[in-house]
Formats: sequence, structure tokens, C-alpha cells
Amino acid sequence: MDSRKIEITEDTRDTRPDESLMAGLDPLPASRRIYVEGSRPDIQVPMREITLEDSSLPEGKTEKNPPIFVYDTAGDFGDPAKKVDITKGLPALREKWIEERADTEVLPGLTSQYGVEREEDHSTLSYRFHRTRPVLAAKPGKKITQLDYARAGIVTPEMEFAAIRENQNRAAYVKSLDAVSPRSRRILLAQHAGTPFEMQMPETVTGEFVRKEIAEGRAVLPANINHPESEPMVIGRNFLTKINANIGNSAVSSGISEEVEKLLWSIKWGADTVMDLSTGKNIHETREWIIRNSPVPIGTVPLYQTLEKVKGDASKLSWEVYRDTLIEQAEQGVDYFTIHAGLRFSHIPLTVDRLTGIVSRGGSIMAGWCITHHAENFLYSHFDEICDILAKYDVAVSLGDGLRPGSIYDACDEAQIAELRTLGELAKKARAKAVQVIIEGPGHVPMQRVMENVEEEIEACDSAPFYTLGPLVTDCAPGYDHITSAIGAAMIGWRGTAMLCYVTPKEHLGLPDRDDVKAGIIAYKIAAHASDLAKGLPGAQIRDNAMSKARFEFRWEDQFNIGFDPETAHAMHDETLPKDSMKKAHFCSMCGPKFCSMRISEEVREWAKKEGMTGKAAE
Amino acid sequence: MDSRKIEITEDTRDTRPDESLMAGLDPLPASRRIYVEGSRPDIQVPMREITLEDSSLPEGKTEKNPPIFVYDTAGDFGDPAKKVDITKGLPALREKWIEERADTEVLPGLTSQYGVEREEDHSTLSYRFHRTRPVLAAKPGKKITQLDYARAGIVTPEMEFAAIRENQNRAAYVKSLDAVSPRSRRILLAQHAGTPFEMQMPETVTGEFVRKEIAEGRAVLPANINHPESEPMVIGRNFLTKINANIGNSAVSSGISEEVEKLLWSIKWGADTVMDLSTGKNIHETREWIIRNSPVPIGTVPLYQTLEKVKGDASKLSWEVYRDTLIEQAEQGVDYFTIHAGLRFSHIPLTVDRLTGIVSRGGSIMAGWCITHHAENFLYSHFDEICDILAKYDVAVSLGDGLRPGSIYDACDEAQIAELRTLGELAKKARAKAVQVIIEGPGHVPMQRVMENVEEEIEACDSAPFYTLGPLVTDCAPGYDHITSAIGAAMIGWRGTAMLCYVTPKEHLGLPDRDDVKAGIIAYKIAAHASDLAKGLPGAQIRDNAMSKARFEFRWEDQFNIGFDPETAHAMHDETLPKDSMKKAHFCSMCGPKFCSMRISEEVREWAKKEGMTGKAAE
Repeated sequence: MDSRKIEITEDTRDTRPDESLMAGLDPLPASRRIYVEGSRPDIQVPMREITLEDSSLPEGKTEKNPPIFVYDTAGDFGDPAKKVDITKGLPALREKWIEERADTEVLPGLTSQYGVEREEDHSTLSYRFHRTRPVLAAKPGKKITQLDYARAGIVTPEMEFAAIRENQNRAAYVKSLDAVSPRSRRILLAQHAGTPFEMQMPETVTGEFVRKEIAEGRAVLPANINHPESEPMVIGRNFLTKINANIGNSAVSSGISEEVEKLLWSIKWGADTVMDLSTGKNIHETREWIIRNSPVPIGTVPLYQTLEKVKGDASKLSWEVYRDTLIEQAEQGVDYFTIHAGLRFSHIPLTVDRLTGIVSRGGSIMAGWCITHHAENFLYSHFDEICDILAKYDVAVSLGDGLRPGSIYDACDEAQIAELRTLGELAKKARAKAVQVIIEGPGHVPMQRVMENVEEEIEACDSAPFYTLGPLVTDCAPGYDHITSAIGAAMIGWRGTAMLCYVTPKEHLGLPDRDDVKAGIIAYKIAAHASDLAKGLPGAQIRDNAMSKARFEFRWEDQFNIGFDPETAHAMHDETLPKDSMKKAHFCSMCGPKFCSMRISEEVREWAKKEGMTGKAAE
Repeated sequence: MDSRKIEITEDTRDTRPDESLMAGLDPLPASRRIYVEGSRPDIQVPMREITLEDSSLPEGKTEKNPPIFVYDTAGDFGDPAKKVDITKGLPALREKWIEERADTEVLPGLTSQYGVEREEDHSTLSYRFHRTRPVLAAKPGKKITQLDYARAGIVTPEMEFAAIRENQNRAAYVKSLDAVSPRSRRILLAQHAGTPFEMQMPETVTGEFVRKEIAEGRAVLPANINHPESEPMVIGRNFLTKINANIGNSAVSSGISEEVEKLLWSIKWGADTVMDLSTGKNIHETREWIIRNSPVPIGTVPLYQTLEKVKGDASKLSWEVYRDTLIEQAEQGVDYFTIHAGLRFSHIPLTVDRLTGIVSRGGSIMAGWCITHHAENFLYSHFDEICDILAKYDVAVSLGDGLRPGSIYDACDEAQIAELRTLGELAKKARAKAVQVIIEGPGHVPMQRVMENVEEEIEACDSAPFYTLGPLVTDCAPGYDHITSAIGAAMIGWRGTAMLCYVTPKEHLGLPDRDDVKAGIIAYKIAAHASDLAKGLPGAQIRDNAMSKARFEFRWEDQFNIGFDPETAHAMHDETLPKDSMKKAHFCSMCGPKFCSMRISEEVREWAKKEGMTGKAAE
């Protein structure tokens, strides 16, 4: 059968998101929101403090375990003191900073044709977000991107905010360890030397360091002036490895409420950025709801909506419709656009001998357009104009890898590399226009070829932040591609990839739901954190050390709470030892009480102490 | 509270396994059991053939997709023609081969004191397995291990069987591709060059190659003469990367039926060996049920049962009780024993400065014994006698890493390395007694230090097969340690680790149930397969190529069926596109029908063909 003839029933009315979406968004256990103040009182950087139980020492004594601090992407949703009304959106954290710079102006209203049309379409009134934010753009002639500021030597409040965030309150944690024994202090602060390749990660990240990294193009700080709700964060290889969660509806699945719920779920579990890849109905309205409620940068692929506007017929795409979409989305506040400008007409024949052709949606759409019109990709030919639009709102460009491999067979082939070189050429152009640039990467890659992808990117794109989808290290496990790809992601993150785009268990099978989003995020939190340990990011091992100390001391609740998903860990422990008393037990159901190796280890330590031995003494 | 005082209620009666355990063991979809015959008619090597749909070509033509063949660990349970009665156990596949060699004798009965006691204990009659197999041992003075035969230049039927198994019927598959187009053939057989380090993997594995690898100590073929039901397989770095699943009850959880069910579940999903780590009640009876129904080698840690015999008091352990346990288990048919003989008394002080002490159960038990008695580990001092017992039944020894690190902090420390050197010394002793040797490894290791573990092992243990638990690349994700460890496992497998011991999501939290066993196995099938791709094992990419071709051609059922878990993939696809017709649809719910990039790629290829282009032509 020809699937194009399958009727998809679309309900044209959507549901209005409401408070019910916040179910399941209770604060994580034993967690408290704290704020670290910057050089000015309105720089208040949120973090999550995890309170730990005391350690029991011999003879009934105890030792405090100072709380640890972790990066927090939940925004005001993670602060019970700040009640968020999702129908009103988040407060405009950056509004004052933007105003102070006095280089932007309030436009009389939306300036895209489509934006105006949607505003005037009263049929959407029942479910649209009622925006009250002004629409901003750069004053004529003014340079307003974070890259402009960085080059001018200005450390913006955004840069300082992002810098403080990177440090995760480590200085305070280190100081708090003055109160513990020298042994505990040594253990809690220990870290294996990393293998950092060409990375240069400072002990403490400063605003000036963030500025320098942005100025030199090794980092980006996506911060559209029309998304003042976002909490600044930085993406670059010398920082914490970041993760992105893709959400968005499709023609056959999901609506506004589900997508807002996926957003809230994403930031709760730790997505550093979220891409709204909607291709179904009400794309404009869905995006408005998402941006107004997102504390993390939002990315999109404007081409998807452009195609919807021409009713799915790639041959009808035009620069004019695309341009209007860029403005529409930039004025809503999208922080970065994936733009498939690197797929040149001449690259298309390189894909003919592939096994899986062009698997990037954006890439295939543009390839379809090119062959229909027998013309160069208009995103390539209009790239300077694109950059001019992006620079007006400080939208970063994520240069899409339209020719990324969709199978192990196609990995690292000529088509992929040819496009990567074009991305390098476009990165230069974007930088000339002071547009912040990220480079997208694969895809499907067998392990032994993962690292060369980063090396080629560094070379071709002059160290612009690399942003990869996995990669999946085998094609053979549909239903488990969060795992096949977490393996590749961990390795490529270690090699210096700045952001890892998650893959959910539903990859290749269907649209992820809320639970799939969570599964993808946790797998990628693991990959990103493992990368940070491997590259030797200062402080990365603090959480592992705190976890293992809790484990050795049978502080079960602490083990759950320090982990990436306390709820699941707790529930799994409950399955075999459900009683509350078991959360204090010096054993678990793996071995039962008689066999516990951890307990015997304690006894060994006691013995050694009695014998007057330490590791060194015994030699 | 002191957990040692918690009362654990134990039911002393167990339930008898019955047919109901086979629910959920239906053959995998589109699969057929085939047998590849060896040099003699009784060498019939089982494999799973996966039938594929035809490809649709333009103008209504079709092209056949020859079936692919995959390794099959399910034994007779995977062959609907062979109805297994689990109360009678599997047929004795190897019985004749063992008899033919005429170097073993039938003992009058069990010779261990404990084995006899259990046989005479009529209280277990209602749930014990009624064994009818004779008890075999080497005739006095006869050398009967596969290592003995290998050194003598004999290619045993076991070696030939294992060799044929490794090839996965590739020759027949290659031949079947004569019937497809040159393009399809090229794609289906393509493979990236691997990075094999010091591995030397032949295009086709022969019995002679298996013999040589065993003779040189780089591989083992665990095959206790009292487990004639087992289907021979080989573990070594120049072969397919193998995975092990741990099952077994504990004092607070599970019984015989659950454990037999976990065994059946393990072999269905692809465990190459299974370790029965029971520490709860009826250990002897549980093991008998498992061995009699296991087509894969069974491993144990005899120390666990020994400790049970002395009522959990490590100080009461003795060589005599341990020795009796070795004989008891060897006569039941355990194929390999983990023996923690490498943890020497002098190593214990090296663990004192650790964060998580001794996390290996076996290691901690022996450490406890050593410090109580202020004496050398009796497994070390009696190692020659141990080997003499093992050689009599051809039990392989897996030298346990009692000092493996239990946290990132402790990774690669002095204690671990000191023990590894002792394992090397013991490996030499075992080889001198013609006992096949495996070396166990970590544990918890940050990514940048994973590979050095293999290098140290190769050096210290003269390339004996390495068998690692993960390793976990971060401590921070309880509930997801199948993922934290699959990352480390994939990397360490690539470097040449021969077998990967799985970790389930319940690790650190509780005893895995049937579903956890499956989750652990699939994660490890992924890791092992990714390793094989990376090291460049000949033929490893066949399954990926077949999968991706099915994906590109929208053969949805084939995608599910080629994958490691067809049921889950199918169910996930059903979630958004449940109709049967959607299994033929040229799109999925990720993008919906209008956006499908795969479809557009097809169109690009049609276009290129019309334009007379191919990848090469276009240059």
C-alpha cells in the first residue's frame, strides 16, 4: 500500500495547557533550591542542594555530611517558593539586563506576516497563550549578540550567570568540608586525572573565561532577547557536557498540553536545552506556550514549520516563506535554529550509494527541493541574509548535518564529510556576522570511529561547539536506542563534544511520550556525566564520591537522593525490601543480611585500625 | 538500628518448577531453528534463522531478502520441534563425545559428603530435581580437560561445535546473496575496518583455530563432563564477545521456580553463560534444576554455599568444607567456578584507605576469614589442590577479583593491581594443571581508565580471557546501572575483554527479577555487539546492514524481528500506530506521513537514477 494515501484524522482544536500538567513535578526529595549571588544582586544563580544524613561513627558518634550542590535546569518550577502559573509563563529574568544595554528596541508588534495572521486568527483564542511580552529587536546598526559583547570585551550578566552555574557552588562545598575529618575530606574531593585531549578547563569558571570562550568561538550562550525568561547557560567543550531533549508533536500524535508537559518533564530531569520539533498542527501556538514556560534555551528547525506552511510540498518551499518563519520564530524567542544550509546541491549525488540515504528530515526536505528545482539549496545561497536576521535577535545557529549517517554502513562517508567542510565555511560566515555557531554531528557511528568525528569537526569548523545525536554504536536494537546511543554519546562527549542530543527508546519507532523523554534524559545525564569524569572536568567526581560514601555507609535514602532519578531508585529498593526500616538496613536484597560485603569491609577497616595499619603503614 | 538483628522469615519448603515457567518463552517472531552440521552427523550446531520480507522495487518488482542467521543460546527451548520437559531436563548432547574419549568413569554415586546428605534428606523430595544422570570423573591418571586435548593437538567435537557456532552460518548467507543485486550484496556484506589492538580474528573460525586459542590460554571452553546437556561455546578475545547473566536467590528473596524462570529468560534473550549466585535456601537443589535445564555453561561462586554451610559465620570457613563444596558442585555439573584465591592476606591493608572497601562478596568473606585467623587465604594456599579437583571434571576456574573497585574513587588502585598480579601467578599454576582459566575484572572505572585495565590484565595474566563486571563509568545512577555499565562494557569489550558480566537496573538496590534480567541482557547484547563491530570481528556488521536496509525500505516487521528484542520494538510501534496496516506504512509517528525523510531519500535516489548519476559518476 502507498502510505501517502493513509488518511490522518486531525482535530483542528487543541487543548489549553493548565495546572494539571504540573502533576509529578514535585521537588526532588531532600532537595532545596538555593541561589548563588553574582557581582550584582540580580544575578541569582539557581542550584539544587541535596541534604545528606549524618554518618554513624563507632561508639555512637556521628559525622555531618555537608550537602552537595548540583546543576539545576528546572527554573522556577524547581523552587516551591515561586509558584509558577503556566498560563502566564515565567518571569523575565533577563529583562533588565537587556534593557540596560540600551541597544534593542520594542517593535510595535510582531513583524512576520505569519505571526500577525495567527494573532488575528480568533479561532485559536481558546487555546493560545496570551502573550504580554513586548517584541524586541536590535536597534538599527547595533550589535547585540553575546558574541558581539564577548568580542568587545564585555562580560555580560548572562556570561557571569553561566559561569557561576558551571561551578555548581563548589567553593562553598569545599569550605563546608572543613567541618569533616581529613579522611572524609580527602575522599570527597578526590578525582582521577582526566584525559582532556585539547580541552583546557579551568579550576573555577569565571565570567571572563566564558567571555573568552565565546569570543574565540569555542562556546555559545544561546539567549534570544525575546526569551528573557531563560536562565543563561553556556555550551562549549571546556564546560560541563550539556544535553538536549527533543520534544514536539507530529501529524499523527500529540498536542499542546502533551508538549508543555514534556517540556516540564525535560527540565525537571535535567535537559539543558529543549528543541521543539513540532511538525503537526498548531506549531506556532505550541511554541509560544513552550517558550513562555521554558527556563532553558529553546531550539527549533524552522524548516519544519515552513514546510507545513506550503502544505508539506517541498517543491513549494521558498526563501520568502522561510524568511518569514525565521522572523516569526525569532520574535517568539527561539534561542537557536537548526539550519540545514550545509547540504549543497552537489553533495546529493554522494548519497546515492548510501544504504539509508538522507535520514535528517531537514536534509531530505532540502535535497527534495534542490532536485525538483535543479538549484542550489536556498539556505546556503541566502546564508548571509539568514545571519543578518539571527543577529538582530541573538538567535544562535546550529548548522544542521542534513547528511548525517542513518546507519552504521553510512558512517563517516564522503557525503557526511563533504557537508562538514561546508559547515566549516558557513561557520566562518556566521562568525563574521557575529552570530553564535554550533555544529551538528552524527548519528550512527561504530565505536572505533566515534572520536575521529570530533577531530574532523575541530579541524573543519575551527573548534565551534559540536552537538551530536548520540551517536548510536549499532543499528540492531530498536526499542533501546537510548542505550545504543548513550554509549556513543559518552565517548564523543569525552572527546570534547559540547552538547549531546538525546535519543529516546522510541527512536525509529514512534513519537516519544513523557516517560520516553525521561528515559532519554537519564541515559544522557549518565553519558554527559561520564564524559565530564573522563575529560577531567574539575569537580566532576564530587557527586560520585558522595554517592559511594553513602553506599558504603548504608545511607539508603542518600543513595536514592544523590542519584539522577531518586524516584526510580527508591521504588526498586522497595520492590524487595519495602519497609521503612529497611532504608536503614546494613544490607540489601541482593545478598541479604548474612552476606553483606560492605558490612564485612567495615569490619576489615575496624580490624586494621586496631592493628594500627593504614594502607601506607602496611607496605 | 543494627540490621543484623532483623528477622528474616524463611519458608523452608520450596516450590517445584513446572511447565508454567515456560510462559513467555514462545519462539521469537519470524524465527526458525536451524542446525549446521559439522564433520560428523552428531555435531548439529543450533542457530536462529530470521526470515525477511521481500523488498519492493519500482514497477511492482520485488527482490528477495535472504534470511539472516544469528547466534542462539536458547538450546532446545528455542526449537519448537523439541518439546522440553523441564522436570526431566535437557538431553545429554555431549554424552557420546565424552564416552568416546574413554578417559572418564562413572562413579558409584555422588562423592561429596554434602551431596550424599542432600540425597538422603527426604524432606526435599517434593521439590528436588530427580537426577538420573550418572556422575562422571576422570579415570585416575587421565587428562580430560579441553585444555589437555588442545595441547595434545586434538580438535574435540566440542571445539568444532563452538567454531561452527562462531561463524553464524555466514558462508551460507554469503552464498544466498548470489541471488540479489550486486548493489544489495555489496551493502549487506560491507563492514568498517575495526581497530583490533592485538586481536587476530580469522575470517572463518575453524575447530583448529579454537584448539589453538585454548592451547595457548587465550580462550576457554567451559564444559564440565557432568553437564553434558551444555552446548559448547568458546570465550576468548578473538571470538564473539560473550555475555554472562547472574541469577540466584538470596536469603530475603526468590525460590527455585523463580530462578529456573530467570535461567530460561536468560537463554531466550541471549546470555552466553549464566552464573547461579544463590545465597538463600536450597542452594543445592536450585542448582540441580538449573544445570539440568541449561544449554549454556553454568558458573557459581562455591564460597557462597560454603558460607551457608557454616551458618554464615566467615570465621568458621575451612578448606575441608570448601573442598567438599567444590566436589559437590563439580559433580552436579558446574562449568566454571569463581574462586577468590588472589586476595592475599597481605593485600588487605591496601584496602583500608579505600572509599568502598571490599565490595566483592567473595573477597570480603575471605578477607573476613583472613583477619579472624590471621592467616593466608586458604584458597590461595590450597590452590594446587583446587586445580586437581577441577581438572578431574573439567571445571574452568574464573579467578575472582575480590578486590575489584566498588566506586569510581577506588578504580585502578594499588589493591586492585596487587591482586591482579597474584591472579597472573595463579593462572600459571592452573595452566600447569591443565585447568582452563578466566580472569575477572572490574567493577567501577571512569571511561578514561577503562582500557588500561585490559592492558594490565594481558600483561599480568598472559592473555587469559578477561571477564569484567561492566565496568560502571559513574556511580551516580542507581536504577540505571545497566546503562552506566553498558558504556564501560562496550569499551572494554572493544579492547579485547572476552566476556561481559551483565549488570541489571537493580544493581546496588535489590535482587533482579525476570524483567531486570531481560533488561540487563539486552543492554549487554548491545555492548557486546558494539564491541564486535569496533574490534572488526568478521561478519559482525551483517545484522546492522540487514536492519538498516529493512529500515530504509520500511519493512517494519523485519526491523522488529532483526532487533535484539522484537517484542518491545513491536509494542512501541503499536503505541502510536497500532493498526496492522501501519506495519506497511512508509512513515512512522515520529514525523508522520508528510515529512518522512526516508521517503524523500527514496525519491532522491530515483531522481539520481533518472539523471544517470551514481556517487562515483557525480564526482
